[in-house]
Amino acid sequence: MKKIKIGTVGLGRLGLKHAENVAFKIPQAELTAVCALEKDRVEKVQKEWKIPNGYTDFDEMLKNKDLDAILIASSSGQHCEQLSKALNAGFHVFVEKPLGINLEECKMAEKAVEDNPDKIFMLGFMRRYDPSYQYAKQKVKEGYIGRPILFRGYSVDPESCIEGAIQFAPTSGGQFIDMAVHDIDLARWFLESDPQSIYAIGGCYAHPEFGKYQDGDNVSALMKFKNEAMAFLLAGRTAPHGYNVETEIIGTKGTLRIANVPQKNLVELVGNDGVVKECSQNFIERFEQAFVNELNEFVSCILKNKKPEVTVYDGTACTEIAFAATEAFKSGQLAQL
Amino acid sequence: MKKIKIGTVGLGRLGLKHAENVAFKIPQAELTAVCALEKDRVEKVQKEWKIPNGYTDFDEMLKNKDLDAILIASSSGQHCEQLSKALNAGFHVFVEKPLGINLEECKMAEKAVEDNPDKIFMLGFMRRYDPSYQYAKQKVKEGYIGRPILFRGYSVDPESCIEGAIQFAPTSGGQFIDMAVHDIDLARWFLESDPQSIYAIGGCYAHPEFGKYQDGDNVSALMKFKNEAMAFLLAGRTAPHGYNVETEIIGTKGTLRIANVPQKNLVELVGNDGVVKECSQNFIERFEQAFVNELNEFVSCILKNKKPEVTVYDGTACTEIAFAATEAFKSGQLAQL
Amino acid sequence: MKKIKIGTVGLGRLGLKHAENVAFKIPQAELTAVCALEKDRVEKVQKEWKIPNGYTDFDEMLKNKDLDAILIASSSGQHCEQLSKALNAGFHVFVEKPLGINLEECKMAEKAVEDNPDKIFMLGFMRRYDPSYQYAKQKVKEGYIGRPILFRGYSVDPESCIEGAIQFAPTSGGQFIDMAVHDIDLARWFLESDPQSIYAIGGCYAHPEFGKYQDGDNVSALMKFKNEAMAFLLAGRTAPHGYNVETEIIGTKGTLRIANVPQKNLVELVGNDGVVKECSQNFIERFEQAFVNELNEFVSCILKNKKPEVTVYDGTACTEIAFAATEAFKSGQLAQL
Amino acid sequence: MKKIKIGTVGLGRLGLKHAENVAFKIPQAELTAVCALEKDRVEKVQKEWKIPNGYTDFDEMLKNKDLDAILIASSSGQHCEQLSKALNAGFHVFVEKPLGINLEECKMAEKAVEDNPDKIFMLGFMRRYDPSYQYAKQKVKEGYIGRPILFRGYSVDPESCIEGAIQFAPTSGGQFIDMAVHDIDLARWFLESDPQSIYAIGGCYAHPEFGKYQDGDNVSALMKFKNEAMAFLLAGRTAPHGYNVETEIIGTKGTLRIANVPQKNLVELVGNDGVVKECSQNFIERFEQAFVNELNEFVSCILKNKKPEVTVYDGTACTEIAFAATEAFKSGQLAQL
Repeated sequence: MKKIKIGTVGLGRLGLKHAENVAFKIPQAELTAVCALEKDRVEKVQKEWKIPNGYTDFDEMLKNKDLDAILIASSSGQHCEQLSKALNAGFHVFVEKPLGINLEECKMAEKAVEDNPDKIFMLGFMRRYDPSYQYAKQKVKEGYIGRPILFRGYSVDPESCIEGAIQFAPTSGGQFIDMAVHDIDLARWFLESDPQSIYAIGGCYAHPEFGKYQDGDNVSALMKFKNEAMAFLLAGRTAPHGYNVETEIIGTKGTLRIANVPQKNLVELVGNDGVVKECSQNFIERFEQAFVNELNEFVSCILKNKKPEVTVYDGTACTEIAFAATEAFKSGQLAQL
Repeated sequence: MKKIKIGTVGLGRLGLKHAENVAFKIPQAELTAVCALEKDRVEKVQKEWKIPNGYTDFDEMLKNKDLDAILIASSSGQHCEQLSKALNAGFHVFVEKPLGINLEECKMAEKAVEDNPDKIFMLGFMRRYDPSYQYAKQKVKEGYIGRPILFRGYSVDPESCIEGAIQFAPTSGGQFIDMAVHDIDLARWFLESDPQSIYAIGGCYAHPEFGKYQDGDNVSALMKFKNEAMAFLLAGRTAPHGYNVETEIIGTKGTLRIANVPQKNLVELVGNDGVVKECSQNFIERFEQAFVNELNEFVSCILKNKKPEVTVYDGTACTEIAFAATEAFKSGQLAQL
Repeated sequence: MKKIKIGTVGLGRLGLKHAENVAFKIPQAELTAVCALEKDRVEKVQKEWKIPNGYTDFDEMLKNKDLDAILIASSSGQHCEQLSKALNAGFHVFVEKPLGINLEECKMAEKAVEDNPDKIFMLGFMRRYDPSYQYAKQKVKEGYIGRPILFRGYSVDPESCIEGAIQFAPTSGGQFIDMAVHDIDLARWFLESDPQSIYAIGGCYAHPEFGKYQDGDNVSALMKFKNEAMAFLLAGRTAPHGYNVETEIIGTKGTLRIANVPQKNLVELVGNDGVVKECSQNFIERFEQAFVNELNEFVSCILKNKKPEVTVYDGTACTEIAFAATEAFKSGQLAQL
Repeated sequence: MKKIKIGTVGLGRLGLKHAENVAFKIPQAELTAVCALEKDRVEKVQKEWKIPNGYTDFDEMLKNKDLDAILIASSSGQHCEQLSKALNAGFHVFVEKPLGINLEECKMAEKAVEDNPDKIFMLGFMRRYDPSYQYAKQKVKEGYIGRPILFRGYSVDPESCIEGAIQFAPTSGGQFIDMAVHDIDLARWFLESDPQSIYAIGGCYAHPEFGKYQDGDNVSALMKFKNEAMAFLLAGRTAPHGYNVETEIIGTKGTLRIANVPQKNLVELVGNDGVVKECSQNFIERFEQAFVNELNEFVSCILKNKKPEVTVYDGTACTEIAFAATEAFKSGQLAQL
């Protein structure tokens, strides 16, 4: 069985998960190299998983011509530069969201992709690869909901992660760019259209720290799409019950709800309080299968030389929309696209 | 609008509820008399609700020929004697379950009913009048489930009521007679057949006090019905979450579940523990509407001179089955009917 | 028992329900008079329910000094004039929503209320009297959700009623005034604040007929409140599954959801399609108890001479906000309040 | 990374799934050999997955000393003989349930295990490795339910598989042995005790074909355990909605429900019928993760030289209980253990 040799960059929480998935969960992939700024992390992973190549310098990794593909899970500000280098060096590339932190970067990424038409490029909007979202998309395609009327997307991080969020606030770009970008992608995917006007509000309801960066701990946006459909997004950081990613698509013939209760498993607890469904606590728990599935898709695209559904232009569009929402939020005015 | 004048006997918790329903919730009934052993309760009700006649002696109330009907919610041991007297005195009669506490009494009740064929007699199996049970029965009639395979009935009182249950244990007759009789009625109603063999087990899992009376705090029975259908009943006293009356009818074509979650209202609480549905806390909360509906049906039967669906023979049959289950529980042997 | 004598005006669907409730469901009320333009309806109700007084002329009914209170369920355009007349004639008044169809009318209503400070005036925002909403409000008061972040209200009529909606479109004032006004009231009630800016969008996704009146078959609005809380409202007419009134209040400490599934009863159907909860089909089914409760509250206020929670000023505010949302919808611009 | 080399026998539906899991889902295992009576299936798997060794003769495979372990997923009647041979030939062994089809065989299996104390032997009660069951077991251990009162286990195959079930009926041993054995294992696992008396009933409600073999299409059993706990099992073949494996453990302090709705994913469909949750359609869909997890556990036990939780004696006990239930079902009498 041919195996795609992959080198990963970034060993933060998600980077480590991706590396682990490549190493153990993707039958037709092989984790051949890891790269991170922190030497000790690189060595630890190499030792524990018997990974032959370790790097602290991304450019060095790109010299390893034994590799087939590069998976980029470094900090957001490095995505575009690294993906461009990797593509131009002849590798297939998988990059975590967001594509870039400004539009110039996104355009640079587009150019690198266009300059390397024979390379597979894929962007990590993992929700599209979650079995429930896949199923919902298929039902929409089959006409179950009729014409789409409203997309509603909630993405709320648990209060238990608030300290990390506050630390990350100065460089996150704000919640629309950091968090709502996932729902922007889903809205475009389900509605098959793009927003033309956006209103965005919110505030610091529990944590004034975000105010310093003209951000809120909970923000929302209402968007009118070019095909007349509506989208309402909520991005928050204060869920007491866990990681609440919930999506609804209302149509003229039916409605689909995904993870209306973001239940962690099939157990119901019946106790003093009543009947309880416990919830997933973080994105890795909720989207464990999706992270595996998206890498399987990436590897499959390489092996079969087909293009992934998510394109670099989707990345640019989502970034553009997230910026417009951020601008609308800051100004209190409608943003037009 | 013609109103049926009703006198009630018994002002315990349920007796008071019935009296209140007659007084305020049944458009075509009028609470004209109340009777109870406790003079102060009678006077209190008379004063608060402006009820003209009060009695501490049941026989005295029966002399009041202004009354049309008698509602009996006294202690179980008095049901059969009182209903016989009331029927023979020319009144329509509504009597709370159980019909009687032994078969001789039930036969006496049957005779009184048969001797007064022009009088309406109704037995208080209120669950049949709950909107959800009514709906389920209609779906069964329409063929939704196909041929019935299994009836499952849970009736579990909340742990919070355990003290009253322990006090009541010496005279309750045991859980099959006191509690499971409701599920026996439902099983016969949904399955349209009668049990022919019964196995019953259980124990004192939290409260050894019931052991003195050869009873358990949780007991169950598996019954084979004459039409081959099965019935599984659980009667308990230790639910931490409230009053759990839950029913399932599995058939060859479909399954119906009633109050799978015995939720108290349509509110979901999403908090630290996850997503919570709070439960009904007692039978009066859960079956509030059913208690009203059954009295409306009683009054309607009087006004239209039609017979209620629940007959005195249903009462006898349920008592007989409950006794057989009790015997099976005590002996550890199968009971045959 | 003292009974409040009530005369009702309007015998449309909801008017008839109100009349029926007064006649049969409100212990301390008595339906003494009915009034409607349609003489046959008046006579039918009088005959069936034995109601002594019938009118086709509202002013005639006001001459009946035997009455204590007037319940107004006529067409929206008559509310303000009739309530003013009734108050000035010395009656207590209950009026269906909306208070008025423009602000001038609302101001006239306010004056009539202020001129008759000893009369009870109540506005029919029945949702506040639904047991689930009452429970949610109490939980909010107790601090369960912490500080409110987002109110989400869906009010979607079933597709099965679309013909009536289309007929009514020319005079309805549009969906914000006709339908969303309920959610506007709930948002103000739960958030204890007023909106300051509104963005509203929508369209004719299934029924172009509403376009003629610059209305949509589904519309939504995102509002920023003065206390920073957000509100998102959806008002629609095309639900395939029934009458979907669903409310969510997200706070910093917890979230409450009311009728997330607008289930009609406690039955679950398990069949070919999976596990199904059937839904309420119309507002009278969903809010049956709320309509009774609000009239009980009205009568109780009269008997105890206390003021209802809902004031005439709530009516004016909701109308004002609904007009601003309508304006925002038509112009595509933000409305500021 | 050391990989355990595994040879599998049996390429039926579940055998193929196990082989696929070994090949692609178990990081520390390697599928080195496959064996089946059907030569074409062996060759197909070898070719598609590049498996070096293929056999149609089990004894031949055992001569391959390059293998570390044998996974047995052949027909039930071969389990005991094959596992004994494999253990005695020096291999670790994983065998699908049931251990054997009679007690003599089980005893033979016990002897083979006892004769090879340094070999890992594991029995495929995969439900124990399902994340939801694992979670429930942990909650029980932590005391969430207090003292166990009742275990309820439903295992109902979909009607859509009825043809296969009818074909298989002559040799299946009946539903208690074929199907309920899973729930017998779960009941023993959760209750930590063994049954002492069993009553079993049922019938052919939709498919008289099972009657020929003194079996039913739906059967149930009520068991009293030595620690007084109760267990109620339902095994069926006629679910219209899918594969319904549902478990409840009621205790004095709380209740746990696993897959009360056996939902296939997190999508809710809101359409004409109401709010629908679609269900898993077969055991491979429902227990996909459990099948992977149990093999990971097997491999981990080999690598760490620890004994799996499920022992050969669990296999014997479950078979013994299933036989007693079968006997009770056929005789209509209580079975004592």
